[in-house]
Amino acid sequence: MSRREDTYWTDDAPAQAPAQAPAPGPTPLPPWTETRIVGNPVQRIDAYDRVSGSATFTYDVILPDMLHGATVRCPHARARVKTVDVSAAEKMPGVRAVITDKTPGAGIVWYGNSRLFDPECRFEGEEVAAVAADTPYQAWDAVRAIKVDYEVLPCVSSEEEASKPGAPVIAEGGNRTPPGKPYERGNLQAGFAAADVVRERTYSTACQIHNPMESFGCVAKWDGGNYLTIWDTTQGVFPVQQTVAQLLKLPLASVRVIGHYMGGGFGAKLGASKYHIITAILAKKTGRPVKLFLTREEAMLAVGNRPPVKMTIKTGVKKDGTLTALQMTNVGIMGAYRAGGAGGVDWVVRDLYLCPNVRTEASDFYINAGPSRAFRAPGHPQGAWALEQMMDELAEAIRMDPVEFRLKNVPATSQNDNKPYSTTGLKDCLAEGAKAFGWEAGRRAGPGTGPIRRGVGVAAGLWQGGAGGPPSTVIVRLFSDGSVNLNMGASDLGTGTKTVMAQVVAEELGVPLDRIRVEHADTGTTQFATASGGSKTVPTESPAVRNAALEVRRQLFEMASAEMKVPAEDLSLVDGQMVSKSDPTKKQPVGRLAGFQSHAVIVGVGYREPNPRDRATRPFAAQFAEVEVNMRTGEVKILRFLAAQDSGRVLNAKTFANQTFGAVTMGVGLAMTEGRLLDRGQTGKMVNANLHDYKLPTSLDVAPDPVCLPIDLHDNFNNTGAKGLGEPATVPTAAAVANAIYHATGVRCADSPMAPERLCQLFATAAKRG
Amino acid sequence: MSRREDTYWTDDAPAQAPAQAPAPGPTPLPPWTETRIVGNPVQRIDAYDRVSGSATFTYDVILPDMLHGATVRCPHARARVKTVDVSAAEKMPGVRAVITDKTPGAGIVWYGNSRLFDPECRFEGEEVAAVAADTPYQAWDAVRAIKVDYEVLPCVSSEEEASKPGAPVIAEGGNRTPPGKPYERGNLQAGFAAADVVRERTYSTACQIHNPMESFGCVAKWDGGNYLTIWDTTQGVFPVQQTVAQLLKLPLASVRVIGHYMGGGFGAKLGASKYHIITAILAKKTGRPVKLFLTREEAMLAVGNRPPVKMTIKTGVKKDGTLTALQMTNVGIMGAYRAGGAGGVDWVVRDLYLCPNVRTEASDFYINAGPSRAFRAPGHPQGAWALEQMMDELAEAIRMDPVEFRLKNVPATSQNDNKPYSTTGLKDCLAEGAKAFGWEAGRRAGPGTGPIRRGVGVAAGLWQGGAGGPPSTVIVRLFSDGSVNLNMGASDLGTGTKTVMAQVVAEELGVPLDRIRVEHADTGTTQFATASGGSKTVPTESPAVRNAALEVRRQLFEMASAEMKVPAEDLSLVDGQMVSKSDPTKKQPVGRLAGFQSHAVIVGVGYREPNPRDRATRPFAAQFAEVEVNMRTGEVKILRFLAAQDSGRVLNAKTFANQTFGAVTMGVGLAMTEGRLLDRGQTGKMVNANLHDYKLPTSLDVAPDPVCLPIDLHDNFNNTGAKGLGEPATVPTAAAVANAIYHATGVRCADSPMAPERLCQLFATAAKRG
Repeated sequence: MSRREDTYWTDDAPAQAPAQAPAPGPTPLPPWTETRIVGNPVQRIDAYDRVSGSATFTYDVILPDMLHGATVRCPHARARVKTVDVSAAEKMPGVRAVITDKTPGAGIVWYGNSRLFDPECRFEGEEVAAVAADTPYQAWDAVRAIKVDYEVLPCVSSEEEASKPGAPVIAEGGNRTPPGKPYERGNLQAGFAAADVVRERTYSTACQIHNPMESFGCVAKWDGGNYLTIWDTTQGVFPVQQTVAQLLKLPLASVRVIGHYMGGGFGAKLGASKYHIITAILAKKTGRPVKLFLTREEAMLAVGNRPPVKMTIKTGVKKDGTLTALQMTNVGIMGAYRAGGAGGVDWVVRDLYLCPNVRTEASDFYINAGPSRAFRAPGHPQGAWALEQMMDELAEAIRMDPVEFRLKNVPATSQNDNKPYSTTGLKDCLAEGAKAFGWEAGRRAGPGTGPIRRGVGVAAGLWQGGAGGPPSTVIVRLFSDGSVNLNMGASDLGTGTKTVMAQVVAEELGVPLDRIRVEHADTGTTQFATASGGSKTVPTESPAVRNAALEVRRQLFEMASAEMKVPAEDLSLVDGQMVSKSDPTKKQPVGRLAGFQSHAVIVGVGYREPNPRDRATRPFAAQFAEVEVNMRTGEVKILRFLAAQDSGRVLNAKTFANQTFGAVTMGVGLAMTEGRLLDRGQTGKMVNANLHDYKLPTSLDVAPDPVCLPIDLHDNFNNTGAKGLGEPATVPTAAAVANAIYHATGVRCADSPMAPERLCQLFATAAKRG
Repeated sequence: MSRREDTYWTDDAPAQAPAQAPAPGPTPLPPWTETRIVGNPVQRIDAYDRVSGSATFTYDVILPDMLHGATVRCPHARARVKTVDVSAAEKMPGVRAVITDKTPGAGIVWYGNSRLFDPECRFEGEEVAAVAADTPYQAWDAVRAIKVDYEVLPCVSSEEEASKPGAPVIAEGGNRTPPGKPYERGNLQAGFAAADVVRERTYSTACQIHNPMESFGCVAKWDGGNYLTIWDTTQGVFPVQQTVAQLLKLPLASVRVIGHYMGGGFGAKLGASKYHIITAILAKKTGRPVKLFLTREEAMLAVGNRPPVKMTIKTGVKKDGTLTALQMTNVGIMGAYRAGGAGGVDWVVRDLYLCPNVRTEASDFYINAGPSRAFRAPGHPQGAWALEQMMDELAEAIRMDPVEFRLKNVPATSQNDNKPYSTTGLKDCLAEGAKAFGWEAGRRAGPGTGPIRRGVGVAAGLWQGGAGGPPSTVIVRLFSDGSVNLNMGASDLGTGTKTVMAQVVAEELGVPLDRIRVEHADTGTTQFATASGGSKTVPTESPAVRNAALEVRRQLFEMASAEMKVPAEDLSLVDGQMVSKSDPTKKQPVGRLAGFQSHAVIVGVGYREPNPRDRATRPFAAQFAEVEVNMRTGEVKILRFLAAQDSGRVLNAKTFANQTFGAVTMGVGLAMTEGRLLDRGQTGKMVNANLHDYKLPTSLDVAPDPVCLPIDLHDNFNNTGAKGLGEPATVPTAAAVANAIYHATGVRCADSPMAPERLCQLFATAAKRG
């Protein structure tokens, strides 16, 4: 993890916030009135490469003379490293370097006041030493041969243990962080007083671990001792560049980070981690390139997670469905260090619904486990888990349909920002989603009474980011045969970013997609972009891409108009030819234009314009689930799922749907199967740090034919009309499933995951009570 | 070789000439009044990488699963391929593909009306088939196992053989090309009539073979079947891209050519050769990357050469040194096909000296040997060999000092273009060169009479190109820590291009060189540049680089001025800090500027402006040699050498001198040692296609301490004041040595190389006569 918290998922510029406001940009271009290719369900431009195996992911990078790295990690939840004996390891065949805390240059500060290889290990999996060897097997053999003398210390593995009197204090300042400044608006007291119904309940979510298909790792290579290239499976080459340059005291221009094909990233790949620096040091020490990839177990332990949160929510509502008060108190489990990912839990409470009186407050606990880190919509699915189940409870209490109840509370103005939304499709998500799902029929049908019960549930959500914004620079180059090279710094996490951007270029330049090449995610050769995270990639980059393409178009049409003696307005660009619209016999291949030739390639530079400051922009979602619950086994089948998504203009209907399904699958994981299990009160170690015992959902765990319903509204916040998608689509999922289970069973499961054993217990308790 | 002649060394835009004149550009910026770093003898920024071996040349590129290619070449000077039996080769271990003329997709047109693997082989070394195998050894074993049935045909190996009645006709239209349109000005007849002295002599030069330190070859890799990457040791990634895309019918954007470190190129690496296409086809057929490098023997036979020329020159001069008439008739040996490199021989005659009456005419012969190709200052060293020896002869005839005679004929206006020169340092080259060399003393000393004689010689030259010009685009990016990334498409042939461009950036942005990274020569990620050839790289690229750096500076100073409330004129940029000149306490790191942050990286795009049309620009050279000749053995030692060089402003005194010495070394090769030897009248095969029998000069063959004397004139033709250097510095060398030998021995050697056996014969003939 980087030395500071990962904040790259915010819409703001990275690093220091601007000392003064940037100048307001020009008014965004008008929306496309008609599109030929933007919006279409276009197959990815790199689909063949991906399915044929020819795509080179970082894991596939092989360099001449490349060594393989492996890391010694603390096997205890808490321990002090007394000695590290590397003598045997150093003599083993193929071993080229062993580095420890004592190695010159390795004493790098991390996590505030800890070090790269800190002798005080605070979690199982913390880095102690590392090795580079000719083969991965030799590297791992050497890891096993390094003798570390640990003094095992008592640990804390839960909020309960951490807050016990006399508990070991594992962080400076105590195990609990001081509560942050509460968020408050209106008068909570008065709100509760005005309510007809008040409800309070405590919810919790389990710890969800980042498990992208491609694990975490990189390849590092030094050229001439002062220029470092890192191939990285990262969401943001520029943030990695920045941290690596800072820690290794190199100029930014001397650190090149390349992130081409990458197998998914959900926040823990937003910036640099310890393995980047370890790999760079091993490569420097050996004078050879080094590849270091974390095993799945290492990744589970060390790279990050969605922090577990305990949320107590108290609400007031009038009989007519008016919300009068919302109060939330959250306790998060940050893990052993502060590395990002905390916070964001209360955002849905603050902003999703009309409510004049709101108060939220949060604090976090340190425990001896891997630190949390930004994870797809940090905090939001947890918050929605609580709020949206509570909304269900309130609707039932006032005998109002859950969709109707939510519709009644849809705001046109951001409650948090006190500004009108640029667009809001939340109403459409709920109303059109309900219609398409067959909500009323589902509710009417009822759960039945046999061992298999059915139910439907709804939940809504938003994402606090997703507007995008500067900085971003993009370059579009038009070659003389009408083919195009698009150069942008943003990573494509596998979501189709390259394809969507190529569509924008194709739209403006009238070029078929197979004549557009995208070069991306390379700090050495592509233009600046922030990390692909925060659901801001499309709303940040696509307007810059459009501006760059339009700049090429402008130059081209200006040239062609002068040379062909045809007014620019009368010209069109079709398959590399400039054609007069009024007289199609007047045409000229672009490569034949003299002005084109004098520059040989037309270069258009496009920037992301600043956002308007008088409006708020947020993407919204409403999701609907139908489940079947086996009351004897606790098994849940999701029969149908519909995700209605307002992410502004849909630039590619296919990738839009795919991204939504991915988000929903992850939400189903949070709801049903995922959760880190620590050996509480005993060793404190993680007992399910593998994909056998840690249950990641697959597409088979979602409904057989999930439906994505895009609410296709052009949002004039930027010139392509798009808002973020990747995160809002995972926010309401778990709550929607929980509400459906409640509808089916009458049992409310306040704690995730809703695993069969937990549900069975709840059914048994309810049966005893009932 | 490319399908058309290599014309990339001209200053004009590649491909089709513009249909109309580009708009005149802005007036160039004023010259630097004072420089901190431009002009200094700065060590190359990549010196460590180069000498430590960490620099990755194309030959060093190793990709996973890479195969190795090898080529079957015709072993006869002329033969018809009757059958190619690949059956045995295909069954050999490790062999993955064999391609011949029959392979689908390999029937590509080349050399006008020939093919990639043409069954009519016109020279020894012509391509017949190719192989890809797991190892180079397996590939070469397979080459030997391919059974080709050749019908050997009678061949021609010289102009004499080719022009004999009844000679085999080896080219359509006959063995001799029709003479081109003669160049004429004034009245030749009248010129000769006005002369006091008329001299005529026939000179010839031998065939000089391209022998860059790194041989010719590339690595090709397909991604997903429709995107081709070629790593290439090329002078011009964009010309290679263009030809490969055209021949393989791919969009330009789908062909990425990368040319990083490269081990020299002198014209035969200006564009695509057959091996590029062969490698690409092998890679496509096998689905694996393929590396194919030519052996030294293959390169000697097939990649190109400086064509031998026979030049008959007739001159008239008055007793006062006024030239009255110059006439030249050239016959070149083009080799088996037209592939560039012919022409240019008469340029020195047309343009170097004041002379009102000039006529030149040329034609070329086809013979059964490798085709000629652009070679460092095509034609010029040959022309200077003739003209500058003739000037010596004339000076002697009119009893005038050779330097004085030349000085008398230095023009201020281009005789060929009829426009004034933007600058001309020819007078300075001659006068200051003579002074620094100790010319008068050398002449006075005389040759002596013993077996070891001494002499001094001078020769001058110019290069018809070297002005540079559009198109070129360059991007400079300033990072928040004040480090800089320079992105340009031009190749660095080893001459220091990257270093010189970094100096220009450093000058304008006040950044130390070690904080500047240059990304170059990559059609996928760098901006457009023409090939590095024609001595136009520095005068083309450096003004674009300066414009890009100034654009960054402009944005930065504008921002800083507004934020720091300091007028832009009062600001300076020092080591990443904006500092007020009048109040140095007012300073701000660039990364802290809010405006900087809103774009995160400042991007400056710079273009090469068009050249002024009312002036001519040419670089000039005068060179001085002192030799010691052993009259018994014919051995020649060059004791001293001085090269006075007017290439405009000197941007880096060290690379300037190195480039000059390289050019002089090559000129010494032409003078003394190099020459292709064909088995004339017999097999027609080359008998010295290796570096043992073909004598390349080394630095030890030049003088022990050669001197470079730059005439450092800022040429206002462009904004950095630089003119071309690489070629003009090789133009007069051979003639200067020949003139020194004449001074020492009284024997004029009209034919290169002046090998000991040739000199001994001449001494013997002269002794008989004398």
